[in-house]
Amino acid sequence: MKFDRSIWFNEDSNCVEVIDQRQLPFKTEVLQITSLAIAVNAIKDMAVRGAPLIGVTAAYGMYTGIMEGKSLDECYDSLLNTRPTAVNLKWALNRQRSVIESIPKAEWVKRLLAEAHNIANEDVEMCSRIGDHGIHLLNDIYKNTGKTVNILTHCNAGWLATVQWGTATSPIYKAFAKGIPLHVWVDETRPRNQGARLTAWELGQAGVDFHVITDNAGGHLMQHGEVDIVITGSDRTTRRGDVCNKIGTYLKALAAYDNGIPFYAALPSSTIDWEMADGHAEIPIEERSEKEVTTIDACIEGHVKPTAIMKPGTPARNFAFDVTPARLVTGIITERGICLASESSLATKFDR
Amino acid sequence: MKFDRSIWFNEDSNCVEVIDQRQLPFKTEVLQITSLAIAVNAIKDMAVRGAPLIGVTAAYGMYTGIMEGKSLDECYDSLLNTRPTAVNLKWALNRQRSVIESIPKAEWVKRLLAEAHNIANEDVEMCSRIGDHGIHLLNDIYKNTGKTVNILTHCNAGWLATVQWGTATSPIYKAFAKGIPLHVWVDETRPRNQGARLTAWELGQAGVDFHVITDNAGGHLMQHGEVDIVITGSDRTTRRGDVCNKIGTYLKALAAYDNGIPFYAALPSSTIDWEMADGHAEIPIEERSEKEVTTIDACIEGHVKPTAIMKPGTPARNFAFDVTPARLVTGIITERGICLASESSLATKFDR
Repeated sequence: MKFDRSIWFNEDSNCVEVIDQRQLPFKTEVLQITSLAIAVNAIKDMAVRGAPLIGVTAAYGMYTGIMEGKSLDECYDSLLNTRPTAVNLKWALNRQRSVIESIPKAEWVKRLLAEAHNIANEDVEMCSRIGDHGIHLLNDIYKNTGKTVNILTHCNAGWLATVQWGTATSPIYKAFAKGIPLHVWVDETRPRNQGARLTAWELGQAGVDFHVITDNAGGHLMQHGEVDIVITGSDRTTRRGDVCNKIGTYLKALAAYDNGIPFYAALPSSTIDWEMADGHAEIPIEERSEKEVTTIDACIEGHVKPTAIMKPGTPARNFAFDVTPARLVTGIITERGICLASESSLATKFDR
Repeated sequence: MKFDRSIWFNEDSNCVEVIDQRQLPFKTEVLQITSLAIAVNAIKDMAVRGAPLIGVTAAYGMYTGIMEGKSLDECYDSLLNTRPTAVNLKWALNRQRSVIESIPKAEWVKRLLAEAHNIANEDVEMCSRIGDHGIHLLNDIYKNTGKTVNILTHCNAGWLATVQWGTATSPIYKAFAKGIPLHVWVDETRPRNQGARLTAWELGQAGVDFHVITDNAGGHLMQHGEVDIVITGSDRTTRRGDVCNKIGTYLKALAAYDNGIPFYAALPSSTIDWEMADGHAEIPIEERSEKEVTTIDACIEGHVKPTAIMKPGTPARNFAFDVTPARLVTGIITERGICLASESSLATKFDR
């Protein structure tokens, strides 16, 4: 079975279904969200991850909970408490709550389902537009060189983190569909290996040519002309164009700059933080459990489980994100078009 | 039991012993080299690794083989064929062959053992001198800041790759012994995780404070003032000071340069290739099996074995080394002192 959406409504079973990302890429399992409890667990246990997808799942989760007869407060609170730092989660829940505020309770279920569809479709549309703009970068490289375009990406900014298309991957899928010859270098992305597990799986599903490399290898490839463009996602972007993304992005941006290779971040404008100027000084960087460093998810006798790769008790630190300063960012691909990583370029594009 | 040598002669058992590095850090097992076949397997199966240690093991292996009654040719050929690209291996075997060339066969065993001791002790002396020079860099930082000196290192350039002291770790051990407060950031060093497995184990044995980090994290730490100096080893250095070392070293050098942090390579002058000027253009980079990327050594129920961390069949590429251009290298720590990474500075120090 092939997928290109991370979440969908199954008309036959009359319920929401998601790909269970905990099992990827070893197993492709579909999880049916038939109760509020299942929706809550899907987010909490990271069967779904990625800010946009978490928001959409929460929206469908509220529909499921109300249909099940749970109270609005119970639905709202239990979904909100799954991942308290995810901005999209609260935003989606608030939006669901507001659309039923002034309508009779008998209409809630129908309205919540419709609004969850809206949220999902808006995300698809936003990501699709990022691809429509970004494809020109890949097409221009192809027109100039006449050769396969080599793209390097880090982590998973693909449709598994959104609903469809993804952000960094959207230009890739659009270019692939147009027949532009492509090859993607997929950074493994330790410690959680989202590149090796999720991006590789996505690209494989789509039939896009790729190789996984260690996070150490990208600089060497850039030195030897094996990378034409770097495209990553972004978790948060300041109004000056500093890009906060998965740890290690900064190192790839440095190597791209050192070798004259364009470095782009692809992102919906909802992740631009207009209140923030200096990413280095202002963006707090989450430090996560050292266990993510000292263990790795491996597939042992058909079961995916964290497996020790260091000596028990090895001290480790685990910083989840880093900030790439705007001076290293060639441009930012948004749903409204491509901007320079500068306050004036971003402000002009978004009428700030 | 504590160790600070990777290979030694046990007078009690009258044989050479090595730490079996395949089991580290999960188990500390000593392998007794009681036959030529065991010596050959120890090198071939990577119970010992690191160019200097491979050379020393081969030298002792020849002694063991002759003592066992094997022919000189059999000893020489079977040891040479273990790792055909290791320069030190051939050099050590040739040296052993030459010292017995003109002496009676009855004296071979004694002479081979003595020369193996010489080769080992010369390596210890060389590494010790690297530390004697490098300690000044750490001491100067400590004198300037009055705070714990934070060192970042990549891969294992420790005594497990040599006989004692190591190269990049030698200044660290010397400074630690002098009471300079130190903390080491140990890059995991995918794909083979020599940092997480070997360097972490070494530092832990010695009591040096350290944390393992993913290869992605060093840039972020440097941006935030958490790294005072980067010291790595080098597999090969050109006469102009380009440093070929474990894949990913270049990315750390870029980040150090971008943040005004000194970046040093520590190496015995035997690894300087005076015939070579431009590392990027001239040094061939070994590409190894993709299995090293798609699997990782994990400890499962007490057994260390390669374990799948990606979907079977995931395409991967595995470049083993990269070249850091001299412009990013602050200096080179050798047994004769610290040079700039330039043709003139290296030539002056080594009378070329």
